[in-house]
Amino acid sequence: MGRWEPDARGRLEKAAMELYTQRGFDQTTVAEIAERAGLTKRTFFRHYTDKRDVLFAGANYLQDLVVKAVAEAPAAATPIAAVVAGLDAAAELLQERWSGARDRQAVITANPELRERELIKLANLAAGIAAALRDRGVPDRAANLTAEAGIAAFKCGFEDWVARPEPHDLATVIRESLDELRAATEAL
Amino acid sequence: MGRWEPDARGRLEKAAMELYTQRGFDQTTVAEIAERAGLTKRTFFRHYTDKRDVLFAGANYLQDLVVKAVAEAPAAATPIAAVVAGLDAAAELLQERWSGARDRQAVITANPELRERELIKLANLAAGIAAALRDRGVPDRAANLTAEAGIAAFKCGFEDWVARPEPHDLATVIRESLDELRAATEAL
Repeated sequence: MGRWEPDARGRLEKAAMELYTQRGFDQTTVAEIAERAGLTKRTFFRHYTDKRDVLFAGANYLQDLVVKAVAEAPAAATPIAAVVAGLDAAAELLQERWSGARDRQAVITANPELRERELIKLANLAAGIAAALRDRGVPDRAANLTAEAGIAAFKCGFEDWVARPEPHDLATVIRESLDELRAATEAL
Repeated sequence: MGRWEPDARGRLEKAAMELYTQRGFDQTTVAEIAERAGLTKRTFFRHYTDKRDVLFAGANYLQDLVVKAVAEAPAAATPIAAVVAGLDAAAELLQERWSGARDRQAVITANPELRERELIKLANLAAGIAAALRDRGVPDRAANLTAEAGIAAFKCGFEDWVARPEPHDLATVIRESLDELRAATEAL
């Protein structure tokens, strides 16, 4: 597997984010990312399948974390409270990474293909949460809609969080979004 | 532009849906669709850009219809009531097409690429509704979350509607989904 490269993955991610931000995602090649990181293309492909993967490699980890937190919420928790437990776990993970999350969001917003990939990531997250709710005994339709409500609040809250000029508490921002969602549907 | 072909578009759509349902989307070619419709590939490409387009050609029309209904809701309507007016317009359009919608949904569910395209369609619809709400003077975050709530209810309601063994009133099913969404967030 080649010689050991100290923190190759972190160096590649940093180099990629710099290039995506400076030149744009489409204008960056894997060779340039590897060169800036002082590594080879071969090393890049040991860590990532392609240049898009650098931006989405954390998605599975995030999803597992959220789904686990939903599953492990107290048995007495309402479905939405279980979802909030999941979103709190996501917020805790992301909280220290505000600056990186801002850069990533800017790269994704600028590129239609990446925006589509992000939508798919969120849809998978919603499906994972809905499955975890069904495992808790929540009926199908309630599981789907509670998961969708959580993802809508997460999506809007996250976008709000990265758009602010300084870091706020992400869990609070997501919770505010959920309150807004509740207020909106109450006006029915 | 070639000779006039009576209802070429409808014949192509019918032929495509039959082939997608019988053989699968990936296993169907444009040449086969044209042949089954008794038309040429050239005629196919006058009406559709590719075989995927047959399934999504109605998306722009649906979006325009929904956004227009949101925009034209009474000035006194709450944001969610304006969204419901938009969803009612969509339901009215789709109501008579239950059987075709079932076939289309089965084709889309079976194919990951088509599922992604469907997600993008719904995200565009959410963005269009949010923009229409902002034009009504609804603040940014409330506009985004009300639009997301509407789309979540539409998505789950629509899936429920096509899954039932006989046609129900789509507007009612969507409204039930929205009630479920409200009930879910009330338990916060």
